[in-house]
Order: sequence, then structure tokens, then C-alpha cells
Amino acid sequence: MNFASDNAYGAHPAVLRALADCNAGAVMGYGADPVTARAEAAIRDLFEAPEAVIRFAATGTAANALVCAQLSPAGGRIYCHQDAHIQTSECGAPEFFSHGAKLVTLAGAEGRMTADTLAEALRRGAGGGLNGGRNAMVSITNATEWGTVYAPDQVAALADLAHGAGVPLHVDGARFANAAASLGCAPADMTWRAGVDALCFGGTKNGAMAAEAVVFFDPALAAGFDFRRKQSGHVFSKQRFLAAQMLALVSDGLWLDLAIRANALASRLAEGVLAAGGGLLAPVQSNAVFATIPAGAHRRARAAGAIYHLWPDKSAEASDPVPIRLVTSWDTPDTDVEAFIALLAG
Amino acid sequence: MNFASDNAYGAHPAVLRALADCNAGAVMGYGADPVTARAEAAIRDLFEAPEAVIRFAATGTAANALVCAQLSPAGGRIYCHQDAHIQTSECGAPEFFSHGAKLVTLAGAEGRMTADTLAEALRRGAGGGLNGGRNAMVSITNATEWGTVYAPDQVAALADLAHGAGVPLHVDGARFANAAASLGCAPADMTWRAGVDALCFGGTKNGAMAAEAVVFFDPALAAGFDFRRKQSGHVFSKQRFLAAQMLALVSDGLWLDLAIRANALASRLAEGVLAAGGGLLAPVQSNAVFATIPAGAHRRARAAGAIYHLWPDKSAEASDPVPIRLVTSWDTPDTDVEAFIALLAG
Amino acid sequence: MNFASDNAYGAHPAVLRALADCNAGAVMGYGADPVTARAEAAIRDLFEAPEAVIRFAATGTAANALVCAQLSPAGGRIYCHQDAHIQTSECGAPEFFSHGAKLVTLAGAEGRMTADTLAEALRRGAGGGLNGGRNAMVSITNATEWGTVYAPDQVAALADLAHGAGVPLHVDGARFANAAASLGCAPADMTWRAGVDALCFGGTKNGAMAAEAVVFFDPALAAGFDFRRKQSGHVFSKQRFLAAQMLALVSDGLWLDLAIRANALASRLAEGVLAAGGGLLAPVQSNAVFATIPAGAHRRARAAGAIYHLWPDKSAEASDPVPIRLVTSWDTPDTDVEAFIALLAG
Amino acid sequence: MNFASDNAYGAHPAVLRALADCNAGAVMGYGADPVTARAEAAIRDLFEAPEAVIRFAATGTAANALVCAQLSPAGGRIYCHQDAHIQTSECGAPEFFSHGAKLVTLAGAEGRMTADTLAEALRRGAGGGLNGGRNAMVSITNATEWGTVYAPDQVAALADLAHGAGVPLHVDGARFANAAASLGCAPADMTWRAGVDALCFGGTKNGAMAAEAVVFFDPALAAGFDFRRKQSGHVFSKQRFLAAQMLALVSDGLWLDLAIRANALASRLAEGVLAAGGGLLAPVQSNAVFATIPAGAHRRARAAGAIYHLWPDKSAEASDPVPIRLVTSWDTPDTDVEAFIALLAG
Repeated sequence: MNFASDNAYGAHPAVLRALADCNAGAVMGYGADPVTARAEAAIRDLFEAPEAVIRFAATGTAANALVCAQLSPAGGRIYCHQDAHIQTSECGAPEFFSHGAKLVTLAGAEGRMTADTLAEALRRGAGGGLNGGRNAMVSITNATEWGTVYAPDQVAALADLAHGAGVPLHVDGARFANAAASLGCAPADMTWRAGVDALCFGGTKNGAMAAEAVVFFDPALAAGFDFRRKQSGHVFSKQRFLAAQMLALVSDGLWLDLAIRANALASRLAEGVLAAGGGLLAPVQSNAVFATIPAGAHRRARAAGAIYHLWPDKSAEASDPVPIRLVTSWDTPDTDVEAFIALLAG
Repeated sequence: MNFASDNAYGAHPAVLRALADCNAGAVMGYGADPVTARAEAAIRDLFEAPEAVIRFAATGTAANALVCAQLSPAGGRIYCHQDAHIQTSECGAPEFFSHGAKLVTLAGAEGRMTADTLAEALRRGAGGGLNGGRNAMVSITNATEWGTVYAPDQVAALADLAHGAGVPLHVDGARFANAAASLGCAPADMTWRAGVDALCFGGTKNGAMAAEAVVFFDPALAAGFDFRRKQSGHVFSKQRFLAAQMLALVSDGLWLDLAIRANALASRLAEGVLAAGGGLLAPVQSNAVFATIPAGAHRRARAAGAIYHLWPDKSAEASDPVPIRLVTSWDTPDTDVEAFIALLAG
Repeated sequence: MNFASDNAYGAHPAVLRALADCNAGAVMGYGADPVTARAEAAIRDLFEAPEAVIRFAATGTAANALVCAQLSPAGGRIYCHQDAHIQTSECGAPEFFSHGAKLVTLAGAEGRMTADTLAEALRRGAGGGLNGGRNAMVSITNATEWGTVYAPDQVAALADLAHGAGVPLHVDGARFANAAASLGCAPADMTWRAGVDALCFGGTKNGAMAAEAVVFFDPALAAGFDFRRKQSGHVFSKQRFLAAQMLALVSDGLWLDLAIRANALASRLAEGVLAAGGGLLAPVQSNAVFATIPAGAHRRARAAGAIYHLWPDKSAEASDPVPIRLVTSWDTPDTDVEAFIALLAG
Repeated sequence: MNFASDNAYGAHPAVLRALADCNAGAVMGYGADPVTARAEAAIRDLFEAPEAVIRFAATGTAANALVCAQLSPAGGRIYCHQDAHIQTSECGAPEFFSHGAKLVTLAGAEGRMTADTLAEALRRGAGGGLNGGRNAMVSITNATEWGTVYAPDQVAALADLAHGAGVPLHVDGARFANAAASLGCAPADMTWRAGVDALCFGGTKNGAMAAEAVVFFDPALAAGFDFRRKQSGHVFSKQRFLAAQMLALVSDGLWLDLAIRANALASRLAEGVLAAGGGLLAPVQSNAVFATIPAGAHRRARAAGAIYHLWPDKSAEASDPVPIRLVTSWDTPDTDVEAFIALLAG
């Protein structure tokens, strides 16, 4: 019973097959291979964005930080939620890649930045003079770090503010598939049609081994991006193996099927939490459950070997009820979910 | 009537004389000159710290950011107040010099970080794993950005927490002289005796043209620091002119005299604010007054050409009362202070 | 017939099998999984270095640049051959990761740095003062970019010089397997017994998909290295897939078998070049042939679709003879080699 | 007798007067003061460049490195002479500020880059692919590090090549005044009329305390430059004191008068060297003499306390003749020059 993270599970068999299928023979390296071309085309198709520039990276931190560096010039201010992955979980990568961008964090319920908060922050940022730096970009996560989603109109409201301030909107989509599954929207509606300029389209948490796609909907924003990837060691010589993973996911709707399943398991867990007298800290809109559970339920679950993080305070072991985070993945066994629910019920 | 900042005023005549006095003849460059040696010795004496390593820089941002880079390793978390100069007013310099340190900001009344808040932040930082980065240093400002001061025991409490977490304590002392004048303490009591590891000892706001001293009380912390200064363009070839400014200030107690005068002017302004029906947003403990003044008083002051910043919201022009910041310097005319008070009174 | 690079070919079947074999179930992420532990142990065994710290990365550029950042402090000078991969083929990654290290390039026949040249460079570097920066590390490539190898005594001579100057010796071993196959030496003899402090042990060119191991023989040199990896986006959440590749290669001597085969193919190509009236630009000691071939042979090869780089001048298309580079891999077909030789012969 | 460097001498009295003259009263900080405006205007006039953007910095390393960062994007290659100050004497500052630019060094007699060499380097750089990085800028020094100058037609030839490759031409003009004095050319002829895009116009070696001006002849190239200055700690709060120095130098032709005197002293030293049986290593075209002198002359000079560097090998103390560098400044006493010549003659 591992609900620690969706990256605790492995790769979908179709992803592994794709690696084997493209393995034979010699191709040119560094992305000049036919698998890369097909994967890029497939993602452009998926997003109905024939002009988009697609690039691959192996980790979400790399994808996000590279985009931050690309979009944030010297002295830039990057606006994000205070619980954003780029702020809390990337060890300063955005600051490192961008050579010193300032991450300006915004509060917001359920992991979402509000338009009012962003408007005020951009307004202050515009008046900060040289000392304060300059507005550079806005970054949101969809699905958020609290398992909630931004609907297209919410994205659009933030995009309008960003664009009004002359800066682009980035979406950290490490769990973009889960958001899409939750919203039932076309990828285009969640992104460029709502004003998104750049997306990190996550593969790893969705069933890849290690693969993410960076999508620049405005090709002009991608100028020189390849040099950043190479200079930071993120260009694979045998790039077919990176591209093949993403190609497998976006083929035949696999990415969405996997997310639908993961989301459903999270909903089922939420039912179990409530049935056991627990509570939800945020609506369950993707593949994560933020909940409080009775201390007794927590003890039973731990005793049975269930793995999950306390959240948001990872040291709240002694509280009652206990705040926890449960994350499901494409490969989480149904039996684990049911067993865990039974443990909660006691 | 300029109360915008203490850097609006020029250099003390003794500082200018010192430049002229050391101008003649040829000396070796890059710090290998006798004025530099004397200035370093004088600062070591002032701090009763015969082993301290002293280095000069021309700007406070450079001094602070160089220390951040020196003390914060890859993936480092730097704890500071949310209104700290390094967070709000250095355009990302600490992140740039340190190649991506994460500034973790703490709330705290009147510009001061509390021991409780710091303890909790360090505890969480220690448990953040690879993704969260590692505790790297604690930075406080004395006098603070709200014009208040940390007494030695308050500094010591924070230093103990920092050291308990295995990290050093840095003091941004852009207005260290004002704090010393306010506290009436020996510099040593405010720094190394209270556990401070590195101090940026400000000269510019105290009456220099452009000079700051970095003081490493533990020489081991200064290893290789000169290469950082040079690599960032902060080593003057004719360094005597940087050293001479600091030497002039620390000679015959000039630094303290200038700060005492600036502080007194601020206290006088505070009296005027209160007499005019205004209020104080923070106790006046150095050379800055954070106050609210009636809108009418604000209009009269502006109409008479008084210069000062609205604070903390620089755009709060239409509020009543109006929140403002008034900063005095060694060279602010008494007549300006009295004229301003008269304007407030209406 | 692709002799462009050893990274033109795919992954060995055993590597793909290893991925599938470790795919099932949930494990903790970021390296806290059993495959990572086994891979690290296997590499320590291979190098007879029970204390060594082993870390994985997906690209050789990342591995090299991370080590440069780890070992080169502010203002550091990194000594390497003028044709070193870190100088010519990593797009400034060492400078980027190290925040401005200066790569000081040394000439040397057949891709090798000589002890005399290094001694002189270190001597000058030691006398450069603040402006010149400080000696930080020495980096050699084994096998070199010219397909030659350093024997253990040659490595030891350079290591002695580096250590005499107080700096460590790094080996870029993107083709370490090919060097080991060529020398018939134990990995320990080529590395720590000869004074090597850190090795980038290449997997990608040896038959992995995308995997390299960084080996710090002195654990003290690895302090904090994980934060660098994470901050630069090079920590895989599903790290088992990185580790499994290296584990497959070092199991049952596969890494060496693959290199022996690649080397043998290169030797066979060299025979063909000489038989066709061509010449060798460097001794063939690993899996690359640097040669000149008659213009007619070049035309025949190109017409038949053979792929290889002109070298060192990639635009020397019109010269006669034509300088070329041929690289063989673990998976280069024998038939391609023979067909190419036949084309050369005319 | 100090011929170590032109920065061994102090500031011209007119520079010190200018500091005192602008000291009184309060002005706005960070460059929004009237002295800065006048200094910028005066430099635009001097260069007949009404659209140029002028910015100040305190050190030549800062000025050069900021321009490198401004003009070299990620993965950039900066072409310079192998003896360029940015390569040999700035401790990696260009790499640090630019976050990893690769300095590609070119040989060339007498400190000058030749058009042929540059053309070939740019051609190779354009064909380097992702791994090699991209052509970013060309940087020359005028006067050069060997005391020679580039005439306008030589500058133009290099500028044409740079522009043909799509990159700008930067001039490190730490001794631009000495070059202008030597050539007798208008500053405009030496710069934008010859195709120069950005100039670091040195004040420090010319008689300032610590002041340089960055001149962007194409304002578009200066976009966002102020944020770089601030983020690297190079914006003075009391910037009037930086601007006043440059204003003093460019007023009434002082900059040129000072350089003419320094150059004349160097010519006189060269005569003395030749008369004493020494030789010149490069033509004396500015304020530096690169010469060999008989070992006996060297011993006499040292015994008399003369200070100068051995050059290019700073440790060639035991050779005969001895290679040396002599640098003169605006303030070098005539009597020192004559005394030194007498020592050489024996």
C-alpha cells in the first residue's frame, strides 16, 4: 500500500514496449531521429497546436526550471502559489537555471492562486523599481499541489492578468493528465485557448519512466531554448528513448486513460476517508487526497505497512486527527485501495 | 525636504578629505596598499575582533549578496524576514550570487524575526529532503527595514537557533551604526559576542560615498571570499579609495556621531507626527519613522515639495491617513525637519 | 553504415530487460529504492572501492558538469585538453554549473595532456593572483577524444601534479569501458590507484539508453553533491530506471564485453583504411578511428550512404585526402564494417 | 618608480574636485540625479552618439562582464584574443555574469586579433551544432593588452565579420583614452562608425578613482541592462559620485590630455630601453612598454626599488635578457621615468 507519490510506481507496459520498438539500428543523436519527430507531431496534434514547439526533458524539475530560465530575464520576478512545486520541491532549481529569478509566492485556498491576489502582486511588482526587479512570468500548477484543478475560465482570468502585465503564463503540468481527466476538457481548452504560453506536460507521473514535454505554444518564446537544454545537460544523445515514452502515452489516448483510473482511485479513497470519520482538506479533483484521519485509523494503517506522507506538516505524527496526503497512480492496485479503506474503517 | 532615504545625502567632509589625503603617489592595487591595511585594522579594533577578516565593497547589495554566496552552498535555504532588504530590494542579487539559493521569508512584527518563527522554519527546513533544499544561513537586518533594532539578547537567541541547526548568522548592517547608536552597545556585543558570524557593516548610508565592510568574525568562513569579490567585479584596483572611506568613518567615533544625529532627527520627526495627529507603525529606534499621517498633512507636505515614500504600499496616495516612511541622514538639515513638522501641524 | 557516433546505436537487450525486470510495484523515489542500492554496490565492487560514493545521471554532459561544479570553487581554473569534450562539446555546461569556472585548455598530441604541459600550466595558475583565479581541478578524458588512452602510469603522473598543486583529478570516462578494454587493466588501476579522485563512468555510449555513474573515490569530495543534482534537475523520481541500466552493464562483465567488441571493429576499420591507401591521424586504441582517406574513397562511401563526420574540420569536404572520424559501437554490424572497408578499397 | 600598472596611481585633482562639487544636498538615488544626467549627455556628445545608452560601473571587470552577460545568450561563444583581459585577468567574471558563456580565444601577434583568424573561428562556431554552442559576440581590447592599438579600419574589418555572423562587437576600452591619444582619431571613428556595438569606456586607468562607462551605441542592445547592474550589486545608491568622475574626465578634453601624457612617458621609456641595449616585444603605441632588458639593467632597477612586472612570464627572473612590462599613467613623475632610464643605462 504505497500512496506516497505517483512516482512510486513504474512505467506502463506500453511505454516499455515503445522503448524496445525503437531500439534497433542506428539513428542520428540529439533529437534528429524519427521517433522524436513523431512524438513532437503527436503532441502538437493532441494540443491542436500545429505551430507549437515541443521539447523533451527527463524530469519535471528540469522542464519547469528550463522554462523559468527561458521566460524570466535578469532581475525577473516569477509569481507562483506558495505551495507551488517550483517553490517548495525543486531545491532552488528555478533560481539556479534563471540565474537568480525571485520567486514571489502568493497565498490561495486549495492550492489555487486567485485573480485578485495575482493582480495585486503584479501591480506591486510593476512599481518596484530597479531594486524590486521586474515582472517576468506567472506560473500555475494544474492539477495543483493540493489535488485541485483550474478550470479553463480560471486559467484565462490569470492569463489575462499576466498578459496585461506583459508577461507570459506558464503551467506546471506534472499532473496535467489528471487535470484533463478531471475537467473533461480538450487540452487546447486548458492551455493556449485559455492564454497559456508554455506548458510542462508531465509524463513521468502519468506512466512514463522519466519523460516530460515542454510545449511552447508561441514558437517565438522557444528561441534558443535548445542551447539551454544542452548547457544544463538535459539533451539526451539517444533522445529517441525520451521521445518514445511520450509518444506511447499520447497514442490512443493512453495518457488520459491512465489519469482517469488514478483519479477514480483517489475518489474512492476519499469516500473511505469520509466513511471512517475523516475529513477532506481540499476537494478531490485529481489523483490526490488531502485529508485528516482519526489517530486510530492512522495507527492501524501504519501498522499494516501503508506508506503515505503526513501533510502539510510532515512531522504531525502525534496530532489527532492526523493530516495526510494520499496519492494514487495509474498502477495503484485496486486491492490496495480497498485494503486501505478497510484499515481506516477499523 | 528629502526624507526619501539616507542615501539621498552625500558624503561627510571627513570622508572626502580622506580620499584626498590618500591620493598622492603610487601604491600597489587590489588591496595591497597601506590604507586598506589601516582600515582593516581599525575595524578589527572597533569590533574587538583581532582575528576577523575584513573586506570592502562599494554597495550594500554587493556586500550582502557576496556573503549569501559565501555561506549558502548548492540547494541552500536562506532564512530572512519577509521585508528584508535582501528579499525586497536587491533585485534577486542573493539568488544570483549564490546561484540559486532559496530565500525563505518569515513574518514578524516591526521588521523583526522571532525566535519561535525561526525555530519552526529551521525545523521544517531540516526535514525537507533533497527537494526542499538544506538549511544554509539565517540573515537578519539590524537596524531593521522598519527602523527597529535587535538587542544583543534577541540576536543571541536567533544565533543560538541558527547554530543549533548548523548554519551561520549574518547581519545586514546597512544601518548598523544607527542600531549601535540606538542601543548604546559596543559593536562586539551586538555581533560576535551575540553569536553573529558575518556582518555587512554599512558605510554608505552612514556618510560614505559608496563603501561597506564585510566582517567575518570566524576567519574560516572567509576562505576564498576574495575570488568571489573579483569574479563579480567588486574588487577595486585603486582600493585605497574604498578603504579610506571606511577608515574615515571609524576614526574618532565619527560613524557613531553621525548615526546619533540621524537617529535624533528621526525621533524629532516622530514627535511631530504624533503632535499632528498621526500615528506610528513601528517604534522609532533608529533613523526611520514609519507613520500614518492625516491626508491633509500629506497634501500640505507634498505641496511644499517634501520628498518621502508611501509605505509599505507605495501607491496608497488616496488613503486617509496616509502610511509613510521618513528617513533621516547624518546630513539632513534641522531646518528641514522643523519645516516638515510645521507642515504636518498645518 | 553509421559511424557518426557510438550514441547512434540503441541500448543492449540486457539493459532493456533490466528496465522491465524492475518495473513492477511501488518503491520509494529519488534513489531510495533497492535497485539503486544494488547498482551502487556493484560499481563499488567493480572499482574495488568500498568507500566510494556513486551517483547516477542521465547524460555525460550532466555528469561532467556536475563534477566540475562540485570540485571547482569560485574563481576556479579547470585544466583540460583543448579537444576535451567539456571544452568543445558541452555548450558551456561546465561554466554554467560551476557558475563561471575558467576552462584552461592545454595542447597535446593525440588528445593527451602531457605532464610537462600540465606542470607549467599549474605553475602559472598558482601565480595568477586574484585576477587569474585559482587552480581548481584537472580533467582528462580516458579514452580521449582522439580515441587514444592514458595508461595508469600516465594518469598517475598527472594525478601527482594535480595533487602537488592541491587540486583533484577528474576523469571523463564517457568511453571508460573502451579504455579499460584497450588497456586490459583493472578499473581500480586506471582510477584511484593511479590517483583519480572522481570519475564519470559512462554507460550511454557503452550500451545504456541514457545512464552515467559519477564515482567519487574520496567520499569527502561528494559532500552536498545530491543537492547539486536536484537543483539542476538531474535527480530522477523513478531513479530505479537509471540505476538498472548501469547495473545491467556492470553485471557479468557486460560493459567490458561490449567495449571489446566495439574496439575490435575500430581496429578492423583501421586496417581497411590503411589497406585503401589512407592514413591514421592517431593510433587506434579504442573504438574510434581518426584517419585520412583518399577523396575517391570518401566519395564512394558517401554515395553508398555511409555516415561519419569529417574531423577535425567538419567542412573539409573538398580536401584530398579527406580527414574523417569513424566511431564504432557495441551494436555496429560486422557487415557494415566490412561493407565500408570494401567501399574504401574501391 | 612604480611602473606596475596605471592603476597604481590615484585620481586626478579635477576628479576629486568634482566629487566635492556635487556633494552638497540631497538628490534622488540610483542614478536619478542631475550629475548622472549630465555625465551621460557629455559622453553621448563626446561620441557624437545622441541615441547611445550610457551606464556607469565602478570597475572594468564589472563593465566588461556585464556587457558579456547582456550580449551573450545561453550557450554563447565569446571570441576574444588569448591575452584579452576578460580571459586572463577577470577571474572568470564573464563566465559568471553570463552564466556559462564559453570564451573562445584566438591567437594574434602584438595582442591583436586578425580578421582571418576571427573569420575562421566564426565559421567553425557556426557549424558547432548544439554541443558547440552558438556564436554570441566578439570582444576586442583597444588599446590592447600588449599596448598596441587597432586603427578604425582594423576595427571595421572585425566588426564586419561579427555582423556577418549575426553577432555584435564589443570593445574593452579600459585604455580607450590611450588608444585615442595614439591614433588621433575621433571617438566615433574608433567605435560606432567602425561598427562597434558596445564599448567599455575606461575611467579608472585614465585618472578616475573607480569609474567606467558602458556605452551601447544601439539602444536596443541595452534593454534590461539596468536590472543586470542592480542584480550584480553594481548600481550605486549615491550614483552621482560615479557619474561625477566620468564627467570630470570628459570635460575640457581632460581624458585625452591625461592619456597623451601617459603615452609620451611610455615612448620615452621605450627610447631608454633601446638605448640600454634592450629590445621591444611589441610596438609602443599607448602607455605600456613590453620589452626585454639586459639582466644587469634589471638588477640595477630592482636594487633601486623600481616596481614593474616580468611579462609575459612573471617568473622569468633568471633569464637574460629579462622580459618586462612597464606601464605609465597620467601621474607618473617625469623624474621617475628619467631615473629609470638612467638605471637601465647603468
